[in-house]
Amino acid sequence: MDTTTYRAYTNIALIKYWGKRNKELFLPVTSSLSLTLNEFYTETTLEWNTQSNEDTFTLDGQILDINAIEKVSRFINMFRDLSGIHRPVHVKSTNHVPTAAGLASSASAFAALASACNDLFGTNLSNKELSTYARRGSGSATRSLFGGFTVWHKGIGDESDSSYAEMIDEADWDIGMLVVMINKEQKKISSRVGMEHTIKTSPFYKLWPETVAEDLEAIIPAIENRDFPTIGQIAEHNAMKMHATIIAADPSMTYWEPESLTAMNIVRDLREAGIPCYFTMDAGPNVKVLCRLSQAEEIKKAFEKHFSSDRLVISGPGKGPHKIS
Amino acid sequence: MDTTTYRAYTNIALIKYWGKRNKELFLPVTSSLSLTLNEFYTETTLEWNTQSNEDTFTLDGQILDINAIEKVSRFINMFRDLSGIHRPVHVKSTNHVPTAAGLASSASAFAALASACNDLFGTNLSNKELSTYARRGSGSATRSLFGGFTVWHKGIGDESDSSYAEMIDEADWDIGMLVVMINKEQKKISSRVGMEHTIKTSPFYKLWPETVAEDLEAIIPAIENRDFPTIGQIAEHNAMKMHATIIAADPSMTYWEPESLTAMNIVRDLREAGIPCYFTMDAGPNVKVLCRLSQAEEIKKAFEKHFSSDRLVISGPGKGPHKIS
Repeated sequence: MDTTTYRAYTNIALIKYWGKRNKELFLPVTSSLSLTLNEFYTETTLEWNTQSNEDTFTLDGQILDINAIEKVSRFINMFRDLSGIHRPVHVKSTNHVPTAAGLASSASAFAALASACNDLFGTNLSNKELSTYARRGSGSATRSLFGGFTVWHKGIGDESDSSYAEMIDEADWDIGMLVVMINKEQKKISSRVGMEHTIKTSPFYKLWPETVAEDLEAIIPAIENRDFPTIGQIAEHNAMKMHATIIAADPSMTYWEPESLTAMNIVRDLREAGIPCYFTMDAGPNVKVLCRLSQAEEIKKAFEKHFSSDRLVISGPGKGPHKIS
Repeated sequence: MDTTTYRAYTNIALIKYWGKRNKELFLPVTSSLSLTLNEFYTETTLEWNTQSNEDTFTLDGQILDINAIEKVSRFINMFRDLSGIHRPVHVKSTNHVPTAAGLASSASAFAALASACNDLFGTNLSNKELSTYARRGSGSATRSLFGGFTVWHKGIGDESDSSYAEMIDEADWDIGMLVVMINKEQKKISSRVGMEHTIKTSPFYKLWPETVAEDLEAIIPAIENRDFPTIGQIAEHNAMKMHATIIAADPSMTYWEPESLTAMNIVRDLREAGIPCYFTMDAGPNVKVLCRLSQAEEIKKAFEKHFSSDRLVISGPGKGPHKIS
């Protein structure tokens, strides 16, 4: 085989990943839980490089800078080492995600790349095993090896194998998200930098691990029971606790923009009007509204009073990565 | 004497009061520290009531509802009991503060009322003693019995006398505030309700007392040394930690409005441009910018790109309450 193309979907954490205990291995401070979305994905074609002795890489048709290529090459080295095939590759990725706008494009990107590597290098890893490799490209990519509701286990000590993802529910029921794009530009402060600043300076971060453990323990049975309001309430609270740790950093910072608050208020108003929906936010200004997929159009209409419709994307649950060609 | 009129100024906490340990006596969970402002004040005229056997009360020319009158009457009862003079009074208050918009109008109101009562009832309390009475009208009123930088000591156990205010610095140097009025309307959630909801449901509140103690210990020497950047940095961080405890409540809430974030960003941009200034916020959307009074006009100009000038008020430090007539 000379070429392979994989598609992998992004995921939105309902219980957030916020902090690494091992930066080298991307081992997280806590476990986390997400919903994979079918409207945001990366397609990655991987082929043996016959033009160059080095890896080459285009993203959305653009040649990437040297830092990005080095990061991707180091990632691919894991598969060269595993397979013993030390050949350069050409990577061609297309993001169907606003890059770095807080929609976790790196999640779908490294899940697609890991899947393509597994195929081209013939390493034959299971998705569970593959998730421990995807993790080392981007923490949240761990969860994009599966669809539906997926848990990423924090694992034990410095054992890379112990920190893998696992689907706990296919999400083949009435659930989805409305993604409100507040800002499609590159964000000012990356999640890595915000995470490190928070861990170093926020007095509240020390309570983060225990509060996540409690939220996970409560949300897993709620997912099993398809108890949507409980899932939503735990997810919203968990996200706000993450943002509270950031706001309490020194100097204070926030990923929120004025329109993020507008979007949160619309969600609160919809709830007061009897429509169950809940917001979550990552290390960026966008607001994701967890809702009944059957009510997403009605919720989108309420948002259209404040946001143009091209900034509002409804998505149902997504699957794990799959081979396109 | 048949009538007396006092003016008292509002204050803005730099180290916040957020939580009562005794609701009856308004005893706080932590000590706090504020700067009194000379542009926002209440004038209160107190006179023996010759028209009625009950207390009557007008605020800004309006007759108040029964709940407000009862609260004021109970407050005045403390002075009737102290003096043995059980006569009804008429209270006429004028606020030069946007009521309940987060500018602590209750602070200046109860400081003025306490001062007027002390005079009319002849109770002859010192301002330190009087601050323990003002406290029972509104916690933040405790600090408005003094000008400049004032500490409100949390005190001991349930001993009302032990929780008093004390001026630590006259603030007779180059310091002031720019108040950015985000919303002059009554706020949706009172500070009392937000405080109780936070204490009950925010997992981070339990760290609030220790973080305030650290901030107080650091800001007091900075005030003594007139070390403005350190004062500002501690105040901004303390305010954001308070708001972080609120954001982490369940269900989550915030006093921030979209324009609050706009104002915070202007402050951050000014700092990047080399102009030292720091924001603080209370249980409302308004943003108060601590700055060099000599630079306040320049800072106001930067805000005028986003806010009309009638929403921007510069204030120097204020004094304690004083008799007008």
